Amino acid sequence: MEKLREIVREGRRVGEEDPRRIVHSFKVGVALVLVSSFYYYQPFGPFTDYFGINAMWAVMTVVVVFEFSVGATLSKGLNRGVATLVAGGLALGAHQLASLSGRTIEPILLATFVFVTAALATFVRFFPRVKATFDYGMLIFILTFSLISLSQFRDEEILDLAESRLSTVLVGGVSCILISIFVCPVWAGQDLHSLLVSNLDTLSHFLQEFGDEYFEARTYGNIKVVEKRRRNLERYKSVLNSKSDEDSLANFAKWEPPHGKFGFRHPWKQYLVVAALVRQCAHRIDALNSYINSNFQIPIDIKKKLEEPFRRMSLESGKAMKEASISLKKMTKSSSYDIHIINSQSACKALSTLLKSGILNDVEPLQMVSLLTTVSLLNDIVNITEKISESVRELASAARFRNKMKPTEPSVSLKKLDSGSTGCAMPINSRDGDHVVTILLSDDDKDDIDDDDTSNIVLDDDTINEKSEDGEIHVQTSCVREVGMMPEHSLGVRILQI
Amino acid sequence: MEKLREIVREGRRVGEEDPRRIVHSFKVGVALVLVSSFYYYQPFGPFTDYFGINAMWAVMTVVVVFEFSVGATLSKGLNRGVATLVAGGLALGAHQLASLSGRTIEPILLATFVFVTAALATFVRFFPRVKATFDYGMLIFILTFSLISLSQFRDEEILDLAESRLSTVLVGGVSCILISIFVCPVWAGQDLHSLLVSNLDTLSHFLQEFGDEYFEARTYGNIKVVEKRRRNLERYKSVLNSKSDEDSLANFAKWEPPHGKFGFRHPWKQYLVVAALVRQCAHRIDALNSYINSNFQIPIDIKKKLEEPFRRMSLESGKAMKEASISLKKMTKSSSYDIHIINSQSACKALSTLLKSGILNDVEPLQMVSLLTTVSLLNDIVNITEKISESVRELASAARFRNKMKPTEPSVSLKKLDSGSTGCAMPINSRDGDHVVTILLSDDDKDDIDDDDTSNIVLDDDTINEKSEDGEIHVQTSCVREVGMMPEHSLGVRILQI
Repeated sequence: MEKLREIVREGRRVGEEDPRRIVHSFKVGVALVLVSSFYYYQPFGPFTDYFGINAMWAVMTVVVVFEFSVGATLSKGLNRGVATLVAGGLALGAHQLASLSGRTIEPILLATFVFVTAALATFVRFFPRVKATFDYGMLIFILTFSLISLSQFRDEEILDLAESRLSTVLVGGVSCILISIFVCPVWAGQDLHSLLVSNLDTLSHFLQEFGDEYFEARTYGNIKVVEKRRRNLERYKSVLNSKSDEDSLANFAKWEPPHGKFGFRHPWKQYLVVAALVRQCAHRIDALNSYINSNFQIPIDIKKKLEEPFRRMSLESGKAMKEASISLKKMTKSSSYDIHIINSQSACKALSTLLKSGILNDVEPLQMVSLLTTVSLLNDIVNITEKISESVRELASAARFRNKMKPTEPSVSLKKLDSGSTGCAMPINSRDGDHVVTILLSDDDKDDIDDDDTSNIVLDDDTINEKSEDGEIHVQTSCVREVGMMPEHSLGVRILQI
Repeated sequence: MEKLREIVREGRRVGEEDPRRIVHSFKVGVALVLVSSFYYYQPFGPFTDYFGINAMWAVMTVVVVFEFSVGATLSKGLNRGVATLVAGGLALGAHQLASLSGRTIEPILLATFVFVTAALATFVRFFPRVKATFDYGMLIFILTFSLISLSQFRDEEILDLAESRLSTVLVGGVSCILISIFVCPVWAGQDLHSLLVSNLDTLSHFLQEFGDEYFEARTYGNIKVVEKRRRNLERYKSVLNSKSDEDSLANFAKWEPPHGKFGFRHPWKQYLVVAALVRQCAHRIDALNSYINSNFQIPIDIKKKLEEPFRRMSLESGKAMKEASISLKKMTKSSSYDIHIINSQSACKALSTLLKSGILNDVEPLQMVSLLTTVSLLNDIVNITEKISESVRELASAARFRNKMKPTEPSVSLKKLDSGSTGCAMPINSRDGDHVVTILLSDDDKDDIDDDDTSNIVLDDDTINEKSEDGEIHVQTSCVREVGMMPEHSLGVRILQI
């Protein structure tokens, strides 16, 4: 009874942690019932004795292929489909070849084929690239090849079998894929994106709180409040071991079709680059955390003098990371972290000037170890933060994020038209009151476009406001970049912050 | 053609990396051919039309269940077997219940059963504990339950079907398990053990070389030699990401029967504890590594003064780790790391005395940051090394490792006999010339044995040499411990180092 209550409690926890799990369970149930009722009422053919082989394959496909995320389902479904097709074809050939050789040699030949194929395919599964992407397909390949080449059917029966097997796998697989895409889809890509954003947020939270924690660690009284704050701070520990989650999500994400804000060939690999840097930073933070309550506290007066640059280093890195996370979350290109990175670097310089001034002359060497290690870790964190923001910028440009605009400024979207002899920009009143400017591009001009030359177009707020009255602005320019619309030209307007 | 050559090269690399992979591929081929030829020559029963359903299930079981390690194969095989049994039973009940309700309601009732079972089981798969151990079983549970409860057979046919399905799964599963255990077995437990040993070795290598690298980094000339040494040093990077490998190996290891030196209930969890500490140490080493070629090198004369304790700290930690790895590798209890840990700690103290002496008064603060961070990291490493040796000691006692003996000393093995009124020791000349002493224990005495009281028995080399001539030594003692033989009494003789 106690056991049962515990299971129910665990179930509630698992469900609350991610309610999509409950939805997924329902989806699997529905898919299974749909597919099996489809076969339940089918007439019995030669291979569908009772609720027979066909229905079995379809039900099996649903059970095995339906995974939590769309990417995983697609990966398994496509692996299964393609492997069944290829193995079926090969097995048919093997079967035919063996049947030519006469009654006695046939089984030996078949066994040899099965042995060689199974051993080879099993070995290929150890290849790292195959293991990452096609592991399940290789399994199904071995399975289908063995089943079909060993079956003692006549050729036309085999064709029948192969056809029915393929069609059932299709019915099962396609219904899984459709349900998983169209009913409350769980996108691995979206999950990876959110995980990265939340990891950045977590680290940023630590860094923004670090100053308070380090300089007031021993002054606060209320144990409960302190403990709660510490627990909150130590959420960063989840980031330390996030590698395997990120890897598998990225692996599934690449199977997913464009969805939501994630276009075709979204740079999932770059997410892993950012994630690796974030993890590196988390390890520095882990080390830093052990110095918050270090036994070797330096004298209060020196601490006071160091407090300002110390706080600024961690606070500004934290803010830069927060900006990076916001840029990622909103999927906009942003340079707003630059200023925080510059601030944190200048704090580094201020700190080293302070250290050079001889402030530490009276400090005990052992206290100095703790202090200077903290300095060096913070320094590392400032450097890694710069790398993180750099890699987020690369991600933003690889993923063609929109340019960031303050809501009071005109948001400019540029669209290419096929015809039109001069560039022309049209402001459109969008929902949130932004000005949207469409620049028409002449075909002749397109060839002149130089990726690095962005200084020629300056969209001035006043100009737009003036000209938007007549509904169309003609911009005399041969050098226009488009914003996140035309991958083939990778254009873009660098909007000056006006 | 180039592509093909590349694949062959990749194949050779994968095979050379671990030749057991090639063996495994052969094993899978053999198992598949064996099982299918077993069914190839079976007479056709009512459910075995052609090379039919039965053979199919057996072949499928082999393909799906046969994994690289014994533990993984057992885990899948047992999961599959038990899930098939339980789901079969439940489905039979559901089928019977539904058939009582009449022709029209029956399909609705069946669909409801399938829906509820599938949804519930899918949800339960999200429970962390279920996911870790029974994920595959739940999958097979859903599959079998759906297939059997939806099948439109009559009850006796279903029993037949269930029986044949179970027997084929048994044939397939058992042959996989037998082949994987008895033909060149790959034990996940052994792999985990070796992985931990090699990780310890890798870190120990770094620590033992660190002194040379840090103090001579800029003096060596030959770039190739330096690069090779650096690559060798940076092998520690593989340890940073070993968590997922270790977790899955430990997960499989617990399914494995006693084998080789690994007894029943070998403490695989404790391996993960040691591994986590080793990884923690690797992260410190990663940070340390970035200071080897730091831009802020301190003046040579101060470096010279610090060299001795610096070298000793890292060297002695490295040696302690090496001893821990040897103790683990040979599966012997050892205290030989204690002395190195004491040495490394005394080096720590020497270093802090040196730092207190004002040696750093003339050092630039920024150089000091680099120096003192190195000090603090080394200090951390010394502490973690102590924790590692402590956890290895716990592992050794939980796994009942033998006590360590030098090969020149008599190795004593103690065997319990059921009868015998006095303790009695028999020396046996073993192959490597060691004296083996068997101590016969009286039943009455066994109860008196106290785990902590080991001082009563002293096996003196001379005594044994003297008495071994008559083939039997009678040792008057009521307090004898056995060596790694009898887990149920956990006895052991602490051999004094004579």
